[in-house]
Amino acid sequence: MTYCVGLMLNKGLVFMSDTRTNAGVDNISTFRKMFAWDEPGERSITVMTAGNLATTQAVISLLEERSKAVEHRSPSILKCESMFQVATLVGDTLKEVISDHADEGQQADSGFNATILVGGQIKGGKHRLFMIYPEGNFIEASEDTPFFQIGETKYGRPILVRAYDPEMSFDEAIKLLLVSFDSTIKANLSVDLPLDVRVYAKDAFQCDHTFRIEVNDPYYLEISEGWGGALREAFGRLPDFDLDAL
Amino acid sequence: MTYCVGLMLNKGLVFMSDTRTNAGVDNISTFRKMFAWDEPGERSITVMTAGNLATTQAVISLLEERSKAVEHRSPSILKCESMFQVATLVGDTLKEVISDHADEGQQADSGFNATILVGGQIKGGKHRLFMIYPEGNFIEASEDTPFFQIGETKYGRPILVRAYDPEMSFDEAIKLLLVSFDSTIKANLSVDLPLDVRVYAKDAFQCDHTFRIEVNDPYYLEISEGWGGALREAFGRLPDFDLDAL
Repeated sequence: MTYCVGLMLNKGLVFMSDTRTNAGVDNISTFRKMFAWDEPGERSITVMTAGNLATTQAVISLLEERSKAVEHRSPSILKCESMFQVATLVGDTLKEVISDHADEGQQADSGFNATILVGGQIKGGKHRLFMIYPEGNFIEASEDTPFFQIGETKYGRPILVRAYDPEMSFDEAIKLLLVSFDSTIKANLSVDLPLDVRVYAKDAFQCDHTFRIEVNDPYYLEISEGWGGALREAFGRLPDFDLDAL
Repeated sequence: MTYCVGLMLNKGLVFMSDTRTNAGVDNISTFRKMFAWDEPGERSITVMTAGNLATTQAVISLLEERSKAVEHRSPSILKCESMFQVATLVGDTLKEVISDHADEGQQADSGFNATILVGGQIKGGKHRLFMIYPEGNFIEASEDTPFFQIGETKYGRPILVRAYDPEMSFDEAIKLLLVSFDSTIKANLSVDLPLDVRVYAKDAFQCDHTFRIEVNDPYYLEISEGWGGALREAFGRLPDFDLDAL
Protein backbone atom coordinates (compact mmCIF):
# COMPACT_ATOMS: atom_id res chain seq x y z
CA MET A 1 0.00 0.00 0.00
CA THR A 2 0.96 3.64 0.02
CA TYR A 3 -0.25 6.89 1.44
CA CYS A 4 0.19 10.22 -0.35
CA VAL A 5 -1.57 13.53 0.22
CA GLY A 6 -1.51 16.75 -1.76
CA LEU A 7 -2.87 19.85 -0.03
CA MET A 8 -3.86 22.99 -1.91
CA LEU A 9 -3.47 26.06 0.27
CA ASN A 10 -3.89 29.73 -0.48
CA LYS A 11 -0.14 30.02 -0.01
CA GLY A 12 0.74 27.15 -2.33
CA LEU A 13 0.96 23.37 -2.35
CA VAL A 14 2.24 20.82 0.17
CA PHE A 15 2.94 17.22 -0.81
CA MET A 16 3.73 14.26 1.44
CA SER A 17 4.26 10.61 0.56
CA ASP A 18 5.40 7.52 2.41
CA THR A 19 8.04 5.19 0.98
CA ARG A 20 6.88 1.69 1.83
CA THR A 21 5.93 -0.78 -0.85
CA ASN A 22 4.88 -4.34 -0.26
CA ALA A 23 3.91 -7.48 -2.08
CA GLY A 24 2.50 -9.35 0.88
CA VAL A 25 3.57 -8.61 4.46
CA ASP A 26 6.73 -10.67 3.98
CA ASN A 27 8.05 -8.67 1.08
CA ILE A 28 8.46 -5.01 1.93
CA SER A 29 10.79 -2.43 0.44
CA THR A 30 11.46 1.27 0.46
CA PHE A 31 10.77 3.12 -2.77
CA ARG A 32 10.39 6.79 -3.50
CA LYS A 33 6.88 7.70 -4.63
CA MET A 34 7.44 11.42 -5.04
CA PHE A 35 9.05 12.87 -8.16
CA ALA A 36 9.66 16.39 -9.37
CA TRP A 37 10.36 18.36 -12.51
CA ASP A 38 11.63 21.84 -11.81
CA GLU A 39 12.77 24.60 -14.12
CA PRO A 40 13.46 27.44 -11.71
CA GLY A 41 11.73 30.67 -12.64
CA GLU A 42 9.47 28.85 -15.08
CA ARG A 43 7.79 25.78 -13.59
CA SER A 44 7.73 23.42 -10.62
CA ILE A 45 5.83 20.15 -10.90
CA THR A 46 5.44 17.41 -8.29
CA VAL A 47 4.11 13.93 -8.95
CA MET A 48 3.15 11.30 -6.34
CA THR A 49 2.18 7.75 -7.21
CA ALA A 50 0.17 4.93 -5.62
CA GLY A 51 -0.57 1.47 -6.94
CA ASN A 52 1.35 -1.17 -8.86
CA LEU A 53 5.05 -0.27 -8.54
CA ALA A 54 6.00 -1.57 -11.98
CA THR A 55 3.32 0.63 -13.48
CA THR A 56 4.24 3.78 -11.57
CA GLN A 57 7.96 3.34 -12.19
CA ALA A 58 7.33 2.87 -15.89
CA VAL A 59 5.21 6.03 -15.97
CA ILE A 60 7.90 8.04 -14.19
CA SER A 61 10.64 6.63 -16.43
CA LEU A 62 8.68 7.50 -19.55
CA LEU A 63 7.99 11.02 -18.31
CA GLU A 64 11.64 11.35 -17.33
CA GLU A 65 12.99 10.02 -20.62
CA ARG A 66 10.72 12.23 -22.65
CA SER A 67 11.71 15.26 -20.65
CA LYS A 68 15.42 14.58 -21.18
CA ALA A 69 15.49 13.85 -24.88
CA VAL A 70 13.02 16.38 -26.10
CA GLU A 71 14.28 16.31 -29.63
CA HIS A 72 13.52 12.60 -29.91
CA ARG A 73 10.24 12.25 -28.20
CA SER A 74 7.39 14.50 -27.44
CA PRO A 75 5.46 15.73 -25.62
CA SER A 76 7.62 16.49 -22.61
CA ILE A 77 6.50 17.42 -19.13
CA LEU A 78 9.00 20.28 -19.30
CA LYS A 79 7.41 21.68 -22.45
CA CYS A 80 3.72 21.50 -21.54
CA GLU A 81 2.28 24.98 -21.54
CA SER A 82 -0.15 24.53 -18.66
CA MET A 83 -0.77 22.31 -15.65
CA PHE A 84 -3.82 20.99 -17.48
CA GLN A 85 -1.52 19.78 -20.26
CA VAL A 86 0.79 18.22 -17.68
CA ALA A 87 -2.12 16.34 -16.11
CA THR A 88 -3.26 15.20 -19.56
CA LEU A 89 0.26 13.99 -20.40
CA VAL A 90 0.63 12.10 -17.14
CA GLY A 91 -2.84 10.62 -17.58
CA ASP A 92 -2.09 9.50 -21.14
CA THR A 93 1.22 7.98 -20.06
CA LEU A 94 -0.44 6.12 -17.20
CA LYS A 95 -3.16 4.79 -19.47
CA GLU A 96 -0.57 3.72 -22.04
CA VAL A 97 1.52 1.83 -19.49
CA ILE A 98 -1.45 0.05 -17.96
CA SER A 99 -2.87 -1.01 -21.31
CA ASP A 100 0.57 -2.20 -22.49
CA HIS A 101 0.89 -4.43 -19.44
CA ALA A 102 -2.70 -5.59 -19.53
CA ASP A 103 -2.71 -6.56 -23.22
CA GLU A 104 0.44 -8.60 -23.38
CA GLY A 105 2.14 -11.38 -21.50
CA GLN A 106 1.12 -13.07 -18.32
CA GLN A 107 -1.91 -11.84 -16.45
CA ALA A 108 -1.46 -10.93 -12.80
CA ASP A 109 -3.91 -11.65 -10.00
CA SER A 110 -3.85 -8.03 -8.95
CA GLY A 111 -4.35 -5.38 -11.58
CA PHE A 112 -1.65 -3.11 -12.95
CA ASN A 113 -3.60 -0.14 -11.69
CA ALA A 114 -2.17 3.06 -10.29
CA THR A 115 -3.39 6.48 -9.24
CA ILE A 116 -1.29 9.62 -9.45
CA LEU A 117 -1.36 13.08 -7.90
CA VAL A 118 0.11 15.93 -9.93
CA GLY A 119 0.50 19.47 -8.68
CA GLY A 120 2.49 22.57 -9.37
CA GLN A 121 2.57 25.78 -11.31
CA ILE A 122 3.75 26.91 -14.74
CA LYS A 123 4.44 30.55 -15.52
CA GLY A 124 1.27 32.17 -16.80
CA GLY A 125 -1.04 29.92 -14.80
CA LYS A 126 -2.19 29.31 -11.24
CA HIS A 127 -0.95 26.61 -8.86
CA ARG A 128 -3.13 23.57 -9.44
CA LEU A 129 -3.54 20.04 -8.11
CA PHE A 130 -4.91 17.02 -9.99
CA MET A 131 -5.76 13.42 -9.20
CA ILE A 132 -5.30 11.06 -12.15
CA TYR A 133 -7.17 7.79 -12.44
CA PRO A 134 -5.91 4.55 -14.02
CA GLU A 135 -8.17 5.29 -17.00
CA GLY A 136 -6.09 8.40 -17.68
CA ASN A 137 -8.80 10.92 -16.89
CA PHE A 138 -8.50 13.21 -13.89
CA ILE A 139 -10.14 15.62 -11.48
CA GLU A 140 -8.85 18.90 -10.11
CA ALA A 141 -8.81 20.16 -6.54
CA SER A 142 -11.03 23.14 -5.84
CA GLU A 143 -12.18 25.26 -2.93
CA ASP A 144 -14.77 22.63 -2.05
CA THR A 145 -12.31 19.72 -2.18
CA PRO A 146 -8.92 21.28 -1.59
CA PHE A 147 -6.91 18.15 -0.98
CA PHE A 148 -6.46 14.70 -2.50
CA GLN A 149 -5.34 11.46 -0.90
CA ILE A 150 -4.26 8.29 -2.70
CA GLY A 151 -3.44 4.82 -1.38
CA GLU A 152 -4.57 3.97 2.14
CA THR A 153 -6.74 7.04 2.60
CA LYS A 154 -9.26 6.21 5.28
CA TYR A 155 -7.45 6.24 8.63
CA GLY A 156 -5.93 9.65 8.04
CA ARG A 157 -8.98 11.31 6.55
CA PRO A 158 -11.00 12.43 9.62
CA ILE A 159 -8.27 14.77 10.88
CA LEU A 160 -7.79 16.29 7.41
CA VAL A 161 -11.51 16.91 7.12
CA ARG A 162 -11.64 18.52 10.56
CA ALA A 163 -8.44 20.54 10.73
CA TYR A 164 -7.64 21.60 7.16
CA ASP A 165 -7.88 25.33 6.60
CA PRO A 166 -6.95 26.95 3.27
CA GLU A 167 -5.35 29.82 5.16
CA MET A 168 -2.98 27.59 7.14
CA SER A 169 0.76 28.17 6.99
CA PHE A 170 3.15 25.63 5.47
CA ASP A 171 4.42 24.80 8.97
CA GLU A 172 0.87 24.04 10.15
CA ALA A 173 0.15 22.08 6.98
CA ILE A 174 3.19 19.83 7.51
CA LYS A 175 2.04 19.25 11.08
CA LEU A 176 -1.46 18.35 9.83
CA LEU A 177 -0.06 15.91 7.30
CA LEU A 178 2.17 14.30 9.91
CA VAL A 179 -0.83 13.72 12.19
CA SER A 180 -2.75 12.20 9.29
CA PHE A 181 0.24 10.00 8.32
CA ASP A 182 0.80 8.98 11.93
CA SER A 183 -2.82 7.77 12.26
CA THR A 184 -2.36 5.73 9.08
CA ILE A 185 1.06 4.33 9.99
CA LYS A 186 -0.24 3.24 13.40
CA ALA A 187 -3.08 1.29 11.76
CA ASN A 188 -1.60 -0.10 8.53
CA LEU A 189 1.68 -2.00 8.27
CA SER A 190 1.92 -1.20 4.57
CA VAL A 191 2.45 2.55 5.15
CA ASP A 192 5.64 3.70 6.84
CA LEU A 193 8.42 6.23 7.22
CA PRO A 194 10.60 7.72 5.79
CA LEU A 195 8.24 10.38 4.42
CA ASP A 196 9.04 12.63 1.49
CA VAL A 197 7.87 16.23 1.63
CA ARG A 198 7.75 19.04 -0.90
CA VAL A 199 6.48 22.53 -0.28
CA TYR A 200 5.71 24.84 -3.18
CA ALA A 201 5.01 28.52 -2.48
CA LYS A 202 2.72 29.89 -5.17
CA ASP A 203 4.27 32.17 -7.77
CA ALA A 204 7.77 31.09 -6.71
CA PHE A 205 8.23 28.89 -9.82
CA GLN A 206 10.78 26.89 -7.91
CA CYS A 207 10.55 24.53 -4.97
CA ASP A 208 12.45 25.79 -1.94
CA HIS A 209 11.75 22.88 0.34
CA THR A 210 12.25 19.26 -0.59
CA PHE A 211 13.18 16.98 2.27
CA ARG A 212 12.75 13.59 3.83
CA ILE A 213 11.46 12.86 7.34
CA GLU A 214 13.46 9.86 8.55
CA VAL A 215 12.35 7.06 10.86
CA ASN A 216 13.63 8.60 14.07
CA ASP A 217 12.96 12.23 13.19
CA PRO A 218 12.55 14.03 16.54
CA TYR A 219 9.71 16.28 15.31
CA TYR A 220 7.78 13.30 13.96
CA LEU A 221 8.20 11.49 17.28
CA GLU A 222 7.05 14.61 19.15
CA ILE A 223 3.91 14.86 16.98
CA SER A 224 3.21 11.13 17.19
CA GLU A 225 3.47 11.01 20.96
CA GLY A 226 1.96 14.45 21.52
CA TRP A 227 -1.05 13.69 19.35
CA GLY A 228 -2.01 10.64 21.41
CA GLY A 229 -1.99 12.74 24.58
CA ALA A 230 -3.71 15.68 22.91
CA LEU A 231 -6.46 13.41 21.56
CA ARG A 232 -7.08 11.80 24.94
CA GLU A 233 -7.19 15.24 26.58
CA ALA A 234 -9.62 16.58 23.95
CA PHE A 235 -11.71 13.45 24.40
CA GLY A 236 -11.70 13.88 28.17
CA ARG A 237 -13.03 17.42 27.91
CA LEU A 238 -16.14 16.36 25.98
CA PRO A 239 -19.11 15.67 28.25
CA ASP A 240 -19.65 11.97 29.08
CA PHE A 241 -22.87 10.23 28.16
CA ASP A 242 -25.26 9.81 31.09
CA LEU A 243 -26.78 6.33 31.27
CA ASP A 244 -28.58 7.22 34.50
CA ALA A 245 -30.54 9.91 32.69
CA LEU A 246 -32.12 7.46 30.24
CA MET B 1 -21.93 -0.78 4.31
CA THR B 2 -22.27 -0.89 8.05
CA TYR B 3 -20.32 0.01 11.14
CA CYS B 4 -20.51 -1.96 14.38
CA VAL B 5 -18.17 -1.97 17.36
CA GLY B 6 -18.04 -4.20 20.42
CA LEU B 7 -15.91 -3.00 23.33
CA MET B 8 -14.75 -5.28 26.12
CA LEU B 9 -14.24 -3.34 29.35
CA ASN B 10 -13.34 -4.47 32.82
CA LYS B 11 -16.87 -3.41 33.80
CA GLY B 12 -18.60 -5.31 31.02
CA LEU B 13 -19.44 -4.95 27.33
CA VAL B 14 -20.68 -2.05 25.21
CA PHE B 15 -22.12 -2.58 21.73
CA MET B 16 -22.99 0.00 19.09
CA SER B 17 -24.24 -0.44 15.53
CA ASP B 18 -25.54 1.83 12.82
CA THR B 19 -28.74 1.06 10.90
CA ARG B 20 -28.04 2.02 7.31
CA THR B 21 -28.01 -0.57 4.57
CA ASN B 22 -27.47 0.15 0.92
CA ALA B 23 -27.34 -1.52 -2.44
CA GLY B 24 -25.77 1.34 -4.35
CA VAL B 25 -26.08 4.95 -3.23
CA ASP B 26 -29.56 5.19 -4.73
CA ASN B 27 -31.02 2.36 -2.69
CA ILE B 28 -30.66 2.95 1.03
CA SER B 29 -32.76 1.65 3.88
CA THR B 30 -32.79 1.45 7.63
CA PHE B 31 -32.39 -2.00 9.13
CA ARG B 32 -31.54 -3.11 12.62
CA LYS B 33 -28.17 -4.87 12.84
CA MET B 34 -28.18 -5.50 16.58
CA PHE B 35 -30.05 -8.45 18.10
CA ALA B 36 -30.26 -9.83 21.60
CA TRP B 37 -31.17 -12.97 23.47
CA ASP B 38 -31.70 -12.40 27.16
CA GLU B 39 -32.75 -14.73 29.94
CA PRO B 40 -32.55 -12.50 32.99
CA GLY B 41 -30.49 -13.99 35.80
CA GLU B 42 -29.03 -16.59 33.49
CA ARG B 43 -27.63 -15.11 30.25
CA SER B 44 -27.44 -11.99 28.10
CA ILE B 45 -26.21 -12.30 24.51
CA THR B 46 -25.83 -9.55 21.92
CA VAL B 47 -25.22 -10.11 18.21
CA MET B 48 -24.28 -7.48 15.62
CA THR B 49 -24.06 -8.17 11.89
CA ALA B 50 -22.29 -6.68 8.86
CA GLY B 51 -22.37 -7.79 5.25
CA ASN B 52 -25.01 -9.14 2.90
CA LEU B 53 -28.39 -8.31 4.45
CA ALA B 54 -30.16 -11.42 3.16
CA THR B 55 -27.44 -13.54 4.75
CA THR B 56 -27.48 -11.77 8.12
CA GLN B 57 -31.28 -11.73 8.31
CA ALA B 58 -31.38 -15.45 7.53
CA VAL B 59 -28.82 -16.15 10.25
CA ILE B 60 -30.78 -14.13 12.80
CA SER B 61 -34.07 -15.76 11.78
CA LEU B 62 -32.58 -19.24 12.10
CA LEU B 63 -31.11 -18.43 15.51
CA GLU B 64 -34.43 -16.91 16.53
CA GLU B 65 -36.53 -19.80 15.27
CA ARG B 66 -34.33 -22.38 16.90
CA SER B 67 -34.43 -20.53 20.19
CA LYS B 68 -38.23 -20.41 20.16
CA ALA B 69 -39.09 -23.98 19.24
CA VAL B 70 -36.43 -25.82 21.17
CA GLU B 71 -38.30 -29.10 21.14
CA HIS B 72 -38.26 -29.14 17.35
CA ARG B 73 -34.82 -27.93 16.48
CA SER B 74 -31.55 -27.82 18.23
CA PRO B 75 -29.15 -26.44 19.20
CA SER B 76 -30.59 -23.20 20.55
CA ILE B 77 -28.73 -20.05 21.46
CA LEU B 78 -30.71 -20.04 24.72
CA LYS B 79 -29.49 -23.53 25.62
CA CYS B 80 -25.78 -23.21 24.87
CA GLU B 81 -23.81 -23.77 28.02
CA SER B 82 -21.04 -21.28 27.32
CA MET B 83 -20.25 -18.22 25.20
CA PHE B 84 -17.84 -20.41 23.25
CA GLN B 85 -20.76 -22.67 22.31
CA VAL B 86 -22.81 -19.61 21.34
CA ALA B 87 -20.03 -18.39 19.06
CA THR B 88 -19.71 -21.86 17.54
CA LEU B 89 -23.47 -22.00 16.93
CA VAL B 90 -23.57 -18.57 15.32
CA GLY B 91 -20.53 -19.44 13.22
CA ASP B 92 -22.07 -22.72 12.06
CA THR B 93 -25.34 -20.99 11.22
CA LEU B 94 -23.54 -18.27 9.26
CA LYS B 95 -21.52 -20.82 7.32
CA GLU B 96 -24.66 -22.85 6.59
CA VAL B 97 -26.56 -19.83 5.25
CA ILE B 98 -23.69 -18.65 3.07
CA SER B 99 -23.09 -22.06 1.58
CA ASP B 100 -26.84 -22.58 0.95
CA HIS B 101 -26.98 -19.33 -1.02
CA ALA B 102 -23.71 -19.92 -2.82
CA ASP B 103 -24.51 -23.45 -3.96
CA GLU B 104 -27.94 -22.92 -5.42
CA GLY B 105 -29.73 -20.57 -7.73
CA GLN B 106 -28.48 -17.44 -9.37
CA GLN B 107 -25.00 -16.17 -8.61
CA ALA B 108 -24.65 -12.59 -7.43
CA ASP B 109 -21.88 -10.19 -8.40
CA SER B 110 -21.15 -9.46 -4.78
CA GLY B 111 -20.66 -12.38 -2.42
CA PHE B 112 -23.14 -13.48 0.20
CA ASN B 113 -20.54 -12.82 2.87
CA ALA B 114 -21.16 -11.49 6.35
CA THR B 115 -19.22 -10.97 9.55
CA ILE B 116 -20.77 -11.11 13.00
CA LEU B 117 -19.86 -9.89 16.48
CA VAL B 118 -21.19 -11.90 19.42
CA GLY B 119 -20.75 -10.91 23.03
CA GLY B 120 -22.28 -11.55 26.40
CA GLN B 121 -22.17 -13.73 29.46
CA ILE B 122 -23.72 -16.99 30.57
CA LYS B 123 -23.95 -18.01 34.22
CA GLY B 124 -20.80 -19.90 35.18
CA GLY B 125 -18.59 -18.08 32.67
CA LYS B 126 -16.98 -14.73 32.09
CA HIS B 127 -18.20 -11.96 29.79
CA ARG B 128 -16.69 -12.61 26.38
CA LEU B 129 -16.63 -11.07 22.91
CA PHE B 130 -16.13 -12.87 19.59
CA MET B 131 -15.77 -11.92 15.95
CA ILE B 132 -17.11 -14.54 13.55
CA TYR B 133 -15.88 -14.82 9.97
CA PRO B 134 -17.93 -15.89 6.93
CA GLU B 135 -16.13 -19.26 7.07
CA GLY B 136 -17.75 -19.86 10.46
CA ASN B 137 -14.55 -19.75 12.50
CA PHE B 138 -13.95 -16.96 14.99
CA ILE B 139 -11.53 -15.05 17.21
CA GLU B 140 -12.01 -13.80 20.73
CA ALA B 141 -11.22 -10.38 22.20
CA SER B 142 -8.45 -10.33 24.76
CA GLU B 143 -6.47 -7.84 26.81
CA ASP B 144 -4.25 -7.16 23.81
CA THR B 145 -7.12 -6.63 21.40
CA PRO B 146 -10.05 -5.64 23.56
CA PHE B 147 -12.44 -4.43 20.87
CA PHE B 148 -13.70 -5.55 17.49
CA GLN B 149 -15.04 -3.51 14.60
CA ILE B 150 -16.92 -4.82 11.57
CA GLY B 151 -18.05 -3.08 8.38
CA GLU B 152 -16.49 0.26 7.54
CA THR B 153 -13.79 0.10 10.22
CA LYS B 154 -11.01 2.40 9.10
CA TYR B 155 -12.17 5.98 9.65
CA GLY B 156 -13.19 5.34 13.23
CA ARG B 157 -10.21 3.23 14.25
CA PRO B 158 -7.55 5.84 15.16
CA ILE B 159 -9.59 7.31 18.03
CA LEU B 160 -10.41 3.83 19.39
CA VAL B 161 -6.73 2.89 19.33
CA ARG B 162 -5.75 6.11 21.09
CA ALA B 163 -8.50 6.63 23.65
CA TYR B 164 -9.72 3.15 24.63
CA ASP B 165 -8.97 2.23 28.22
CA PRO B 166 -10.19 -1.06 29.76
CA GLU B 167 -10.95 0.82 32.99
CA MET B 168 -13.25 3.34 31.34
CA SER B 169 -16.84 3.75 32.56
CA PHE B 170 -19.83 2.88 30.39
CA ASP B 171 -20.59 6.59 30.02
CA GLU B 172 -17.08 7.25 28.72
CA ALA B 173 -17.23 4.20 26.47
CA ILE B 174 -20.46 5.40 24.83
CA LYS B 175 -18.82 8.78 24.27
CA LEU B 176 -15.80 7.07 22.69
CA LEU B 177 -18.00 5.01 20.39
CA LEU B 178 -19.97 8.09 19.35
CA VAL B 179 -16.75 9.89 18.40
CA SER B 180 -15.66 6.86 16.39
CA PHE B 181 -19.07 6.58 14.70
CA ASP B 182 -19.17 10.31 14.01
CA SER B 183 -15.79 10.16 12.19
CA THR B 184 -17.13 7.30 10.08
CA ILE B 185 -20.51 8.87 9.36
CA LYS B 186 -18.84 12.11 8.25
CA ALA B 187 -16.70 10.19 5.74
CA ASN B 188 -18.92 7.39 4.45
CA LEU B 189 -22.46 7.83 3.14
CA SER B 190 -23.21 4.17 3.77
CA VAL B 191 -23.01 4.48 7.57
CA ASP B 192 -25.62 6.56 9.37
CA LEU B 193 -27.83 7.15 12.38
CA PRO B 194 -29.94 6.00 14.14
CA LEU B 195 -27.46 4.02 16.26
CA ASP B 196 -28.38 1.07 18.43
CA VAL B 197 -26.65 0.70 21.78
CA ARG B 198 -26.51 -2.06 24.36
CA VAL B 199 -24.59 -1.95 27.61
CA TYR B 200 -23.96 -5.14 29.56
CA ALA B 201 -22.55 -4.89 33.10
CA LYS B 202 -20.56 -8.02 33.90
CA ASP B 203 -22.15 -10.54 36.26
CA ALA B 204 -25.54 -8.83 35.85
CA PHE B 205 -26.86 -11.60 33.59
CA GLN B 206 -29.33 -9.15 32.17
CA CYS B 207 -28.99 -6.08 29.99
CA ASP B 208 -30.11 -2.92 31.74
CA HIS B 209 -29.52 -0.52 28.91
CA THR B 210 -30.77 -1.04 25.38
CA PHE B 211 -31.55 2.13 23.49
CA ARG B 212 -31.41 3.90 20.17
CA ILE B 213 -29.68 7.20 19.43
CA GLU B 214 -31.90 8.97 16.91
CA VAL B 215 -30.87 11.30 14.10
CA ASN B 216 -31.30 14.54 16.03
CA ASP B 217 -30.19 13.25 19.42
CA PRO B 218 -28.93 16.32 21.30
CA TYR B 219 -26.02 14.45 22.95
CA TYR B 220 -24.86 13.08 19.60
CA LEU B 221 -24.97 16.57 18.08
CA GLU B 222 -23.04 17.94 21.06
CA ILE B 223 -20.32 15.29 20.63
CA SER B 224 -20.22 15.68 16.85
CA GLU B 225 -19.83 19.45 17.00
CA GLY B 226 -17.70 19.45 20.14
CA TRP B 227 -15.28 16.90 18.73
CA GLY B 228 -14.48 19.04 15.70
CA GLY B 229 -13.61 21.96 17.96
CA ALA B 230 -11.73 19.79 20.44
CA LEU B 231 -9.67 18.23 17.65
CA ARG B 232 -8.74 21.58 16.17
CA GLU B 233 -7.80 22.86 19.62
CA ALA B 234 -5.67 19.77 20.34
CA PHE B 235 -4.07 20.14 16.93
CA GLY B 236 -3.35 23.81 17.58
CA ARG B 237 -1.54 23.01 20.81
CA LEU B 238 0.98 20.71 19.11
CA PRO B 239 4.14 22.53 18.03
CA ASP B 240 4.22 23.56 14.36
CA PHE B 241 6.91 22.30 12.02
CA ASP B 242 9.67 24.82 11.36
CA LEU B 243 10.62 25.06 7.70
CA ASP B 244 13.07 27.87 8.46
CA ALA B 245 15.11 25.55 10.67
CA LEU B 246 15.79 23.10 7.82
